[in-house]
Amino acid sequence: MTRTNQAWVLKQRPTAAVEPGDLELADLPVAALEPEQVLIRNVYLSLDPTNRIWMSDRDQYLPPVAVGDVMRGSTIGVVETSTTDRFNPGDVVIPADSGWQRFTVSDATSTSRVRKLDGVPLTAHLSVLGMTGLTAYFGVTDICRPIAGETFVVSAAAGAVGSVAGQIAKIAGARVVGIAGGPEKCRWITEELGFDAAIDYKSQDVGAELDRLCPDGVDMNFENVGGTIMDQVFSRLGTNGRMALCGMISSYNTEGPLAGPRDFGRILMHRLTVRGFVVIDYLPQAKEALQELSEWVRQGRITWKDHVVEGLEEAPAAMERLFRGDHDGKLVVRISDEN
Amino acid sequence: MTRTNQAWVLKQRPTAAVEPGDLELADLPVAALEPEQVLIRNVYLSLDPTNRIWMSDRDQYLPPVAVGDVMRGSTIGVVETSTTDRFNPGDVVIPADSGWQRFTVSDATSTSRVRKLDGVPLTAHLSVLGMTGLTAYFGVTDICRPIAGETFVVSAAAGAVGSVAGQIAKIAGARVVGIAGGPEKCRWITEELGFDAAIDYKSQDVGAELDRLCPDGVDMNFENVGGTIMDQVFSRLGTNGRMALCGMISSYNTEGPLAGPRDFGRILMHRLTVRGFVVIDYLPQAKEALQELSEWVRQGRITWKDHVVEGLEEAPAAMERLFRGDHDGKLVVRISDEN
Repeated sequence: MTRTNQAWVLKQRPTAAVEPGDLELADLPVAALEPEQVLIRNVYLSLDPTNRIWMSDRDQYLPPVAVGDVMRGSTIGVVETSTTDRFNPGDVVIPADSGWQRFTVSDATSTSRVRKLDGVPLTAHLSVLGMTGLTAYFGVTDICRPIAGETFVVSAAAGAVGSVAGQIAKIAGARVVGIAGGPEKCRWITEELGFDAAIDYKSQDVGAELDRLCPDGVDMNFENVGGTIMDQVFSRLGTNGRMALCGMISSYNTEGPLAGPRDFGRILMHRLTVRGFVVIDYLPQAKEALQELSEWVRQGRITWKDHVVEGLEEAPAAMERLFRGDHDGKLVVRISDEN
Repeated sequence: MTRTNQAWVLKQRPTAAVEPGDLELADLPVAALEPEQVLIRNVYLSLDPTNRIWMSDRDQYLPPVAVGDVMRGSTIGVVETSTTDRFNPGDVVIPADSGWQRFTVSDATSTSRVRKLDGVPLTAHLSVLGMTGLTAYFGVTDICRPIAGETFVVSAAAGAVGSVAGQIAKIAGARVVGIAGGPEKCRWITEELGFDAAIDYKSQDVGAELDRLCPDGVDMNFENVGGTIMDQVFSRLGTNGRMALCGMISSYNTEGPLAGPRDFGRILMHRLTVRGFVVIDYLPQAKEALQELSEWVRQGRITWKDHVVEGLEEAPAAMERLFRGDHDGKLVVRISDEN
């Protein structure tokens, strides 16, 4: 049986915000299964700032998506057909390599079964119990390493990674300040997630607010944004301060080098540690981390939001919401029905 | 008995290279000893790039030297008089706080006895067996953490810290490339210290030479210089690369922020760790480190050079040699005779 796969193909590399014509929705044949493979009907597609990096040819941590190839992306889906004993039709799975597409053919060895939790929606396995939760987990526990009473500042604090990072830092006993855009996001992270304070970068002077809220300086910066917001936090990192550099979304829609803080010498004078990380390096430790995250979710100690956009055809436009902050939690696209 | 102390006093903060008038040689009274103190006749004064930081009021890791105060500096000297059972006249000691001066009054508890080694000159206790050796030791062993076969690049490689750092990295099994100024320094680090290669930044294209010598990239950067040389090395750091940020001497004679690498995003994309450090943070571990360094010196596995300038009155002019590279190893000033 030959199926048709609808997929977003990269036609040309965007040089600023993604525009119509950069990606094209194409009908492609679905390859016949070889032994030990599954055909997955994708249900949700994860949209992440890092997708924009993959569209560019800037120096990056994975090969860029080639022009003419299906856009890379994480999905969760349901097995339709299987040539392996490991999976049966109806199993809910996450393929290691997927894309902005309706169907994914995946080797059995590169396919993970999703262990559904009572009361937890499927989208959570792309967010708090997926890559974004793991990103938050390892950035906080392996790089920031909070000591109770220390001050932790996270940017894009209402985002999929930042919101979970702040809550993990709270669990570790840190004082958590989040930087987010707009009063509703600031309300959410303080009143519902338990952050100690929020700074609205759209209406407040970030530096002045940091001075007010962190009079003794900042011990840890979980950085998702880069640019001037990063510089405001960085320039207040105190002795032995740590920066977990997770993302620099403010610059992804530009070309050329990603600018750093104004005074790099601060790293020397204040003995800072600045460390970049990518969650894929931590996948060998993911199982234990997911157990701990699941436990926190079960206990209600970690709260999250998934923002579902309907329809694969909306993916490019939806992704641009990430760059405007025009979304509410983890952004996913619904490609097909769960059942 | 009242003694006169000749001392360099900071009269005004230099804004570029140190000029006559920034420091003034003054006659000051020597304070009478209180109980549990020693009066030390200083024999050698250590000159270090960091002295220039202390003269400025830029943000730094110790309080700047106040205008009107004796210039801060490390010395080794001989006890002249003592009001403590711990030290006797004639003991060779290093006071924790000293300065560019003939005499230092030091509390017994802040004074370290020097354990002289056969065949090792006294100056070594300000260099390979002193703060600079320790700086190299901890930067390599605690931050760079070489794995055998990895590539280690050190700038100011013929300097007091860089030359020892490279040799420690060699002992750990790394491939070591040094960046130094001039053919004689490059000859010294390769032929006498055993570095695998040298780059003469005065006559060669540092980037092109790095590409030639490190075709698989750089794993570790022990950084002493900053500026464009740092950027050339940084932009070749590979995945999981480490930078031990020890100094940025190329910018100390300027005012304002110390510029960083052009593409800070490399820290993210290549999961780099950039860590600044100052040796004083490691003093609790100094004893074991000095034992290991002493053993390497005894075995002839670490070679070094001390460059002695005669006369306290020469200290400011001598310090400027550090910024021109017009010195040969660890720079010290002889203030008085050893005996």
